[in-house]
Order: sequence, then structure tokens, then C-alpha cells
Amino acid sequence: MKIGSQAHHSSAISTSNETTILIRGRDLTQELMGRIDFTEHFWLLLTGALPTVPQRRILDSTLVAIAEHGLVPSVQAARMTLAAAPEALQGAVAAGILGCGSVVLGSSEAAGYFLSAIATRIDTGISVEQAAKAVVLEYRAERRSIPGYGHPLHKDFDPRVWRLFDVAKENGGVGLHVEIARQVELLLPDLLGKPLTLNVSGAIPAVLLDAGYPLRALKGVPILARTAGLIAHLLEEQLRPIGFVLSHAAAAATEYDGEMPPGFRGTP
Amino acid sequence: MKIGSQAHHSSAISTSNETTILIRGRDLTQELMGRIDFTEHFWLLLTGALPTVPQRRILDSTLVAIAEHGLVPSVQAARMTLAAAPEALQGAVAAGILGCGSVVLGSSEAAGYFLSAIATRIDTGISVEQAAKAVVLEYRAERRSIPGYGHPLHKDFDPRVWRLFDVAKENGGVGLHVEIARQVELLLPDLLGKPLTLNVSGAIPAVLLDAGYPLRALKGVPILARTAGLIAHLLEEQLRPIGFVLSHAAAAATEYDGEMPPGFRGTP
Amino acid sequence: MKIGSQAHHSSAISTSNETTILIRGRDLTQELMGRIDFTEHFWLLLTGALPTVPQRRILDSTLVAIAEHGLVPSVQAARMTLAAAPEALQGAVAAGILGCGSVVLGSSEAAGYFLSAIATRIDTGISVEQAAKAVVLEYRAERRSIPGYGHPLHKDFDPRVWRLFDVAKENGGVGLHVEIARQVELLLPDLLGKPLTLNVSGAIPAVLLDAGYPLRALKGVPILARTAGLIAHLLEEQLRPIGFVLSHAAAAATEYDGEMPPGFRGTP
Amino acid sequence: MKIGSQAHHSSAISTSNETTILIRGRDLTQELMGRIDFTEHFWLLLTGALPTVPQRRILDSTLVAIAEHGLVPSVQAARMTLAAAPEALQGAVAAGILGCGSVVLGSSEAAGYFLSAIATRIDTGISVEQAAKAVVLEYRAERRSIPGYGHPLHKDFDPRVWRLFDVAKENGGVGLHVEIARQVELLLPDLLGKPLTLNVSGAIPAVLLDAGYPLRALKGVPILARTAGLIAHLLEEQLRPIGFVLSHAAAAATEYDGEMPPGFRGTP
Repeated sequence: MKIGSQAHHSSAISTSNETTILIRGRDLTQELMGRIDFTEHFWLLLTGALPTVPQRRILDSTLVAIAEHGLVPSVQAARMTLAAAPEALQGAVAAGILGCGSVVLGSSEAAGYFLSAIATRIDTGISVEQAAKAVVLEYRAERRSIPGYGHPLHKDFDPRVWRLFDVAKENGGVGLHVEIARQVELLLPDLLGKPLTLNVSGAIPAVLLDAGYPLRALKGVPILARTAGLIAHLLEEQLRPIGFVLSHAAAAATEYDGEMPPGFRGTP
Repeated sequence: MKIGSQAHHSSAISTSNETTILIRGRDLTQELMGRIDFTEHFWLLLTGALPTVPQRRILDSTLVAIAEHGLVPSVQAARMTLAAAPEALQGAVAAGILGCGSVVLGSSEAAGYFLSAIATRIDTGISVEQAAKAVVLEYRAERRSIPGYGHPLHKDFDPRVWRLFDVAKENGGVGLHVEIARQVELLLPDLLGKPLTLNVSGAIPAVLLDAGYPLRALKGVPILARTAGLIAHLLEEQLRPIGFVLSHAAAAATEYDGEMPPGFRGTP
Repeated sequence: MKIGSQAHHSSAISTSNETTILIRGRDLTQELMGRIDFTEHFWLLLTGALPTVPQRRILDSTLVAIAEHGLVPSVQAARMTLAAAPEALQGAVAAGILGCGSVVLGSSEAAGYFLSAIATRIDTGISVEQAAKAVVLEYRAERRSIPGYGHPLHKDFDPRVWRLFDVAKENGGVGLHVEIARQVELLLPDLLGKPLTLNVSGAIPAVLLDAGYPLRALKGVPILARTAGLIAHLLEEQLRPIGFVLSHAAAAATEYDGEMPPGFRGTP
Repeated sequence: MKIGSQAHHSSAISTSNETTILIRGRDLTQELMGRIDFTEHFWLLLTGALPTVPQRRILDSTLVAIAEHGLVPSVQAARMTLAAAPEALQGAVAAGILGCGSVVLGSSEAAGYFLSAIATRIDTGISVEQAAKAVVLEYRAERRSIPGYGHPLHKDFDPRVWRLFDVAKENGGVGLHVEIARQVELLLPDLLGKPLTLNVSGAIPAVLLDAGYPLRALKGVPILARTAGLIAHLLEEQLRPIGFVLSHAAAAATEYDGEMPPGFRGTP
């Protein structure tokens, strides 16, 4: 049964024969292994070209920024999953990655589309402020939250944001998307009636889009970065398990408020 | 309900307050972002210490080696999943990672335990050859395959293996585990009655264990590496979709051989 | 770190002590096991009440309708995953379920919201036709596809649709949502310029919403049903493996069209 | 690239043409929808034959038994995942299913292989007691735990076990595997030096194997059953979210015990 469009029948990422593996046209063993680092390889896989030094540094700083932030939900889901199913580390990593969603961890993607929509509007000849205002108002009209702003812990300022902007500046990489991100932050108190600080998931797409990173791969940055953090937690879970301690404490923080036969007593 | 051992109640990877995020005791924004690359960060997350230059280079070469190998099963599962569920890139990545198993892609872990078992035996005072022979025979007695040997495409030699060994050599990182991996390859024709070449999933743990990478995090290397490859494929899937082409071709390669009412004709 | 709203701290589904497990206020072993079937239990879990006989029959017919449709993408992803990672059947099921998305298999959810939006409009006093037309035009204005209509194989009519409607009729369960679903089908040729037949993912929410099944659990029906189909395929995969045959055929149906060094030849 | 054995190229579960969908040789819309329930359909999908009434009842009782047990790790992982990624209910279900592992929830599979190994030994002519003793001792020699015995909450007796046995008895379905399961329980105090009660994951394979359910599909029972429970929790999560409450409480129950710069204070 043929589902969906079937216009394409090819891939341009890799091919191989018995002696050679090509990645984006380059001989894996001769040109890449031992010559480029993993971040360069990731950029090459995505774009078909090696990154410049500034591009690599900016990408590295975003991956380092978002890889780890303690016992957040995705990490807890992964550690509980490994505790229950130690036979499959890949399953525990997958459970963690599934929490890279639109609300937590994965909002870099939505923020990138938001910044990009403003940039497209600017191309039509209006100012950054006008374009930003127009798109923010459209989001509000559709009752969508403004992605990339606000953080439960880092309320007044997210320390990672300014560091990312500094790294971008040091590498000549501050451009239109960073400008937009800052402009929106200035406009939000007026437009929303309350201030909301730019968070790391808003700053990551700003610096990456300015550096030429592909828009539709933005969610790949928190996913790849967090995979590194998850693996570290799953190593620790094997050595000093807390998966069931986490789930026990979580369950103890909630009550059963459904029906009960008279006289029934739950076990804490 | 308390399940399992609950001896531990702490994690040593990250903590934070409103202004500072600590990763392994280091200030994320001041000491790490913009100063170390993603591979160094991964090593730091895992071990609590920054890698030496040789450690970083060896880890990079393994990540580059295993990130991508064309339209393998894990990539196909991910691309089909994105085609069916474009709303959740994280789900497509997770579907791909779930294929990082004991048979394909994830056998670095089992190979690491195998090499490590031989190394432990050597510590008791016997030779590499004696230890290797003993452990291979035990695996055979338990009908377990020898992990890290044999490859469906790269039958005579896996080009990535020798490149990994070269990178390790260039970085002073060839040690006992590489020696064991080679010794086993020499012994297999006799012990199994047929030659089986060392493959990339056998070479990765050999060079990483020699470099001091933690045994229980070995599966993290193909998982992290392949995540990069998956993201590249999922970017391409958005631009030039083939997910349904793949599933259509796969279905067409199989037949229905179950019961049928008389006269029933399937649709190709 | 507190993320999101934390207004609720309780669950009403299940509690237990050392001797008794309560499910929705009922004693699991005394009142449920051996007394109700799995479909009734599912309805009880979702709603807190046992279904009537018509509700159970309608739910059963939707679960039976959508459980299995051959080697579709989700099944292929699951079988390839088990072939690569036989140590974790749960991982293979998860890989399959991840393909229950907005495009394939999971569109019952979007179709339910669509039918429900029309029903809400009717509550304001306009006719079924007027309400249906208004909502279809809004979807078109937002360039959203009309969920629940069209099928790649069952173009002229989806045999499952009429059977579902018959089962609903036999059980006194045809109501407003079925009427809406049919009305939309009549309007589409005019509104879209081409006919699109109601498919199974449109009929499922129609009969279930008429039966009182909860809107926000609609995606649970294809997910639960397909889980049954996936387990059957994963049993077959253990007995007669085709996971790698599928991926081999799929890969062979595509070409590499990226860069290549002069003279490079791929291996088919 | 051809991986693994490729001896098989067919599937016997389902095929279709434009007007008819066959499931195990039966016309889906004419013979199955509206005529059989979901449990019967599951058995048909697995085995190719409809279950007898006793088989259906026993399968139903196992599915009802294991579908739900409150805020266990798999449910927490699913609810946290939906809170973070509300765009993909399938991802939250998948995260929950991934916790159906060898330690928690999924041990029915290992228990089934254990009971089956004893049954095979009995076929050679020794007594149930002798066979059970032999296999238990082998497991202990290989330092494997005895699957299906012991429970963190239901220590003295698991109420679901006796109910399952009663349902089996009522349906004429108590046979060799139940006998083995009980015999092992009697032997464990002597063989392990402590009593361990049969738990629900040991009783499920006992009654199912006696009823003719396929051994290699045993893990499908907790997976399918728990999927129903997960969907109920994910409906509740949409109406009364606690995903972040769970993760907040879990994080608060643990400490950071890694390195810290002098004077650093974490935020609770």
C-alpha cells in the first residue's frame, strides 16, 4: 500500500562497498576518523560540509549548555526505566529522549521557528521591532505561548543565555536571530503585561541560526546533547542505583482521591 | 511501594541554584561552555574528569566511526516513524535508538564485557592466549556468539577497525584490550572452525577500554554516535521524504502465506 | 525546580495495601478479575465506570478494526527493532507504537477533535451542515488537512467504516458524531474540489464519541489495538524472522545520490 | 547489506485488497468486527485460531490482573513524558512500556521460560519436585534470581495469584505449569534459605501456559495490559496533571554529593 508522497527514492548521506564507507562523499576511515571531532562530524552529517571553526565552537557551546541539568524529568524517566529493565540501556535512553518535547527540553525547535518567522517578515522590509511585534501578537491571537522565554528556576536571567551570546560574539557569530531574540525580550513586558526572560532554549536557536545551522535540525541539538547526559546518569544508575528511590518518593508525594470501600486503608 | 535496593539517595553529576549550574563540580557557564568541546563534555559527564588529549581523540574517532552507515535498520525505523508521526522528532530518534541492540549496533557493550573478562583472567597470571582461549571456549559452551567479530558487508576486514587501531597508536593508546582483541581474531579459526574478522563493534571497546573509558558506559558510544546520524537522516526525511517508500518496498519483498478464502486476491 | 502548574497532587485510578488492590474503587481480585473482560476493564480504567453492553461492543469493534493491517510502517519498525535487539521485546513494541502518529494510525485523535469542534458549533444552534461547512473551511484556511478522510489503499470506501456504523446501529449507538462524519463526507467534494471517503480513523472517533468514550483518550484506541497486532508480529518474528529481509529490501529500493569520489562503486 | 538469516520472506498474519482485509484468513469486517471481542482478537492474532471460552477467560483475567497498580515507575515515566511532550501521546505510552523490563512488570516472560524449562525436564521422566529442584539449583549456580517469586508490597501473599488460580480452576485450566509454580514455592525456603511467595508475574505464565498461550508471547501480556493502564493515566494527566509534581518530589528526595566550589549553595 502506497502511503504519502513517494517522489523521492534516494539519500545523500552515506553509501559503502566492501572496503570503503563514504559519508557525505568523504572516505570515513581516510578522511574523517582521527581527523575531525564528533561535533564536526555531526555538522558534516547534517549539512554535507565541514563547519568553520566559529560554527564548530558555537555548536559545541550549545551542546555543552543543554546536555545536563540534574535530575530533570527526562533523566528520571531514563533512570526508572533502567532500574526496571536493565537488559536494555537503549530503552532507558529512548525513554529519556521521549521527554525532549515541546514543553521541556525540546522547545529550541519551536523557538527557532518563531525567530525564523520574524526574520522572514523582516525580509519584506519592515524593522526588527515591527516584525517581532507582529509575530508575537499573532502567536497570542492563536493562544500559543512564546517559545524560548521564561524558566522555572532561572527566572531573572538564565546564565547560559549570556554565555552563549558571548561565545557567539567571540566567534563573529552574532547576527539577525540574536538581535531578534533580544528585541522580543524587550517587547514582551508591554505585549504580555509581564516580563519573561530569554531562556537557553531561545538562545540556542538564535546563535545556531546565525551560524548557519539548519532550522529543521534544531531539535537535534537538545536531543543529541541530552543523550550524553542520559548516558552519564545511566552509568551512575548502574553503580549507585536511585531509580526506585525516585519513583518511591514521587508516589509518596501524591494521594489517591478516587473511590474507596468503607474502612479501606492504603499502604504508604 | 519500595522496589529494589534503596541504599543510595544521591547523584554526583549536576546541581544548580538560580545563578549557577554545576556539572561535575565545575561552573557550566564559566568553566565549560565555550572552553571545552562536546566530546570532552561527554567524558567529563561520565567520569567526573576532563579527558587527556589522547583520550579525547580516541573517543572522537570511535564516535565518528559508528555514527553513520547508510540506510541500516535503525535509520529506516526512524525515518518511517517520522513519516507517520512528524509532530515528534524525538519519537523518531527514540525508535532508531531502540535498534541499538545486542545483535546490531549495540554489540560494543557485549564485546567490552568479553574483552574485559579475558583481561581479568590475565590478571590471575596466565598468558593473553591462554586467557582468550579459555573465555572463548566458555562462551561456546554456553552457546553464546563471540561479540565483536564478523560483519555482513565487511567480511574480510572492516576498514574502521584498522583506522581505530592507528588512531589509538598515534595517541599512545594501544594496550592490553587491543592486544586481546587481536589475539582472539588469531584464535578463532581454530576454535570455531572458521575465521571471523574483528569488526568495528569489537575494536571500539578495545581502544576505549585501553584509554580508560568506563566499561558500563560502552553502549553509550554507539547510542550517542548514532543519534547524530539519525538526526541527519531525519533532517533529510523532512526535505526529501522516503519513509513510506522504504516501507512500501519492504512490504513488497514479502508474501502473505497465511490462510485465505478461495479466490481471494491480495493487492500488491 | 518546579516546572509547570502544580495544582494537582492526586490520582483517582488505583491504590493498594498489602492485601487489596483497588482499581477505580473496586477490589481487583474480588470484583474484577474473572468477572469482567479486558475491554470492560479498559473502559473502567478510563472512566471510573463499567461500560454498558453497547459501549463495550462498540469499543471492541473499534479495537478489532484497527489492531492489524499487515506489514505497515509501525510493524516493520517493530520487527526490525526486535531483529537488532532481541533482548528487549518492550523496545520493539515501543518502536512500533511511536509510529502511531498524526499521519498514520493515530489520526483518530485529530479526527475526534475535528468532529467534536463541529458538534460544539451545532450546540450554538446552527445545522449540522452549516457547522460542518464552517469548520472544514477553517481547517482549509489554516492549511490543515481534514483528519479521518482518504486512504491510500481503500480509496472508494473503507470496508471497516460501514461495519463500524452497523455495529453502532445494532447497539443503538449512532448519534450526532456519526451524522457529522457522514455530512462532512458529502460536503467534501464541493469544499475541496475532490471526493475523499471517510476512513477507519474517522469512523472510530465518530462511533466512540457517540458511545460516550472520552475525547482525550481517543488516541489510546489505535495505540492499544496496534499493541496487540505488534505482539503477534513480534511472536512471528521470533519464529520466522524477516526483520532484516525488510530492511534489506527497503535499502535496495533507494539510491545514494550524494557526492562520490571518481570511480567509487557501491555494493548493492 | 544483508544482516542475519534471511531464510523467511513471508508473514501469515494479515493481507488485504481494496475491499477486504484478511486477518489470519478471516474477513475482518464480515467475520470479526462486531462478532468477537478484543481479547479473542488478540488470541487469534497470536495463534491463528479463536480461543475457547476458558482460554479467553483465563487470558482476560491475566490482562485485568496486571493492567494497573497505581503510580509505579512505568506510569510515572509516562506521565512525566506527557507533561514534557504533550504533542505525542504515543511517546508517553512508549516511555511507559519501555519500563516493562526483566526486573519490574516484564518478568512474566522470564518466569514462563523458567516454568517451561522445568516442564521440559519432567518430560524426561522425573518428578515435578525433582525437575523443579534441578532447575532452581541451576539458576542459583548461574547466580540468576528465580523469576516470578517475591514482591516488595505483597510479601506474604499476592492476592492476584490465588484469584488467577481460581479463575483457571473454574475454567478447567489448571495443569502442569500451575503445579510446577506451586511446587517451586514449597521448595524455595529449603533451596534459598528463605521463603519467597509466588507473585503475579509467576502466576500469569503458569495459567497461560496451561491454557495453551504461546511461550514467546508471554511478555505481550503485561505490555498489552499495562498499555491500557498507561492510557488511563495519560487521560488523567491531561485533565489533572501531576507529571511535574512527581518529578519535583523525586528530585527533592535525593541529594547532590559531587564536587562543589567552596560556598556553593544549591536551590532546593
